[in-house]
Amino acid sequence: MKSSSTFLEVSRRTMLSAVAALPALPLGFPTSALADFGSNTLPSWNDTASKRAIIAFVERVTKSGSSYFVPEADRIATFDNDGTLWAEQPIYFQLAFALDRVKSLAQQHPEWKDKEPFASLLRGDLKGALAGGEAAIFQIVTVTHSGITTEEFEKLVHDWITTAKHPHTGKRYTEMVYQPMLELLAYLRANGFKTFIVSGGGIDFMRVFAERVYGIPPEQIVGSSGKLDFELRDGRPILMKLPELNFIDDKAGKPVQIQLHIGRRPIAAFGNSDGDLQMLEWAKGGGGVRLALIVHHTDAEREWAYDRNSSIGRLDKALDAAQAEGWTIVDIKNDWKTIFPFGIK
Amino acid sequence: MKSSSTFLEVSRRTMLSAVAALPALPLGFPTSALADFGSNTLPSWNDTASKRAIIAFVERVTKSGSSYFVPEADRIATFDNDGTLWAEQPIYFQLAFALDRVKSLAQQHPEWKDKEPFASLLRGDLKGALAGGEAAIFQIVTVTHSGITTEEFEKLVHDWITTAKHPHTGKRYTEMVYQPMLELLAYLRANGFKTFIVSGGGIDFMRVFAERVYGIPPEQIVGSSGKLDFELRDGRPILMKLPELNFIDDKAGKPVQIQLHIGRRPIAAFGNSDGDLQMLEWAKGGGGVRLALIVHHTDAEREWAYDRNSSIGRLDKALDAAQAEGWTIVDIKNDWKTIFPFGIK
Repeated sequence: MKSSSTFLEVSRRTMLSAVAALPALPLGFPTSALADFGSNTLPSWNDTASKRAIIAFVERVTKSGSSYFVPEADRIATFDNDGTLWAEQPIYFQLAFALDRVKSLAQQHPEWKDKEPFASLLRGDLKGALAGGEAAIFQIVTVTHSGITTEEFEKLVHDWITTAKHPHTGKRYTEMVYQPMLELLAYLRANGFKTFIVSGGGIDFMRVFAERVYGIPPEQIVGSSGKLDFELRDGRPILMKLPELNFIDDKAGKPVQIQLHIGRRPIAAFGNSDGDLQMLEWAKGGGGVRLALIVHHTDAEREWAYDRNSSIGRLDKALDAAQAEGWTIVDIKNDWKTIFPFGIK
Repeated sequence: MKSSSTFLEVSRRTMLSAVAALPALPLGFPTSALADFGSNTLPSWNDTASKRAIIAFVERVTKSGSSYFVPEADRIATFDNDGTLWAEQPIYFQLAFALDRVKSLAQQHPEWKDKEPFASLLRGDLKGALAGGEAAIFQIVTVTHSGITTEEFEKLVHDWITTAKHPHTGKRYTEMVYQPMLELLAYLRANGFKTFIVSGGGIDFMRVFAERVYGIPPEQIVGSSGKLDFELRDGRPILMKLPELNFIDDKAGKPVQIQLHIGRRPIAAFGNSDGDLQMLEWAKGGGGVRLALIVHHTDAEREWAYDRNSSIGRLDKALDAAQAEGWTIVDIKNDWKTIFPFGIK
């Protein structure tokens, strides 16, 4: 971890070339993909090995008297967010928030007209704005994620997430969630699991919508964070968001944050990229039966197809590990009947 | 926060003179104090203003349709631990663990015979050992709380807490909990509250016993912490406890950690010292009806009496604030029928 960087910098430094590649990414949502929903378990999952592995795992750990039985208190399941619970293309949705916020802050910063990366950004030149690399992203994240109170930030995210639309689908970002994963969350909870998000995304950002969208309350969200300062403003206590990194919840940082926030090792972990490798290793490293699952983005027609060479959500080492260790690899194209919940809302 | 210090150093730096004062502290547990328990609400509480304030608060926020009604998801209650849920005299119980662990580690460290603070400690001279002040405590905490995995540490704490005995009462430390507060935790949970510990004590230390003793699961424990490192040892993932501070969860750090771990502002907060002042201010600073409660140690016969001039659990600024703001101040001597659960187990 670099103490001089802000929390988006490291986990999202690979975003640049993806933005460049944006027009090349195909995206269509054929209505034929929206299968009918029955009352069966995990209805948006095809009856393939992935679904069977999930159900077999849950049945083993919940069967009283079985040698694999796990008491409810220890049924901890951790989920990555970007690319695992919701989409992450063409750019991480939180970065879209940051870019939009630069535009809305521009009035208060007339000097930005002549200052990069803001000048390019305000001219609508995203590639130019991000040409400054990590330093440019650092500046963008700093001005958009600090200098305000936690309550002010929550309101900003709320206002954005309830109005902003995905550039390709025109849907709200909170509609760009994976229906099969929503069903999986509900299925696990119905079987006594406590579900957590453990994401490289900003902890305060995700908490604004995670309870409504995923049914996961704020105290079960773990993510990257900036430092906070407690102050009395006119006698009223506030928490100021400082332009300083607290923790990047990515890669080897995920097991560390799991210990710090949850204090129990998950028996099931779900991710989609190399940033999730250590979390899955940590879950698998415990005793008894464990589930480690990788969502592999293989469907260029209904979503996006990317893995080893992607600048966002790169899945390379974790794919090797999953194959070598026999983890469950979800092949979206073949395993998911439906991807997004459009049309069934 | 001082990055060069370890987590016990700052929050517990006042321990020195309390150790010196140890023999002067009175402690008796007259059996007459163990009142009978009925099925009424908070049976170990006398029917005084404190109990009535608690019940009035709970009834207001749980009454559907009332303008003070709070949905269950927002019924967050945060409790300090040392001096609020269990005793903290003559020294913080976690420091007793650290001192005992130095003794058990001595065999592996023959050089300690000639090295302070260990040499004095191993001769049984606690005052001499701690004469080195913060540096001595730093050394003691470093060698006892790091250099091992989280799992090894958990086992050490478990073995200690199930066998070690309080120097005055001869009871296990987990019996030195306040019966009225156990009832309060249960009463709040029965009314839809989610109860959290937010303590200056070590997060990994408290988690070992908090679920069994308080009914509070690891993921609802917030505390001070050291840094961790994720490693593969012979291919098996471990988390090493490093001799480096992560966060001191005390004073202004408490609201910060509440935001980071819980992400919602508590509507009720419970403490006993100046270290809890900002947590109580933070809880009170939200909208609607809120409960801020201070446990005031006033009973020199049945427990210990201490406040403004105590080196452990100093209650000075927070007592002023509580009086000025009209917070609930529990007068242990008059408000608690029973203090410890001895004899009813």
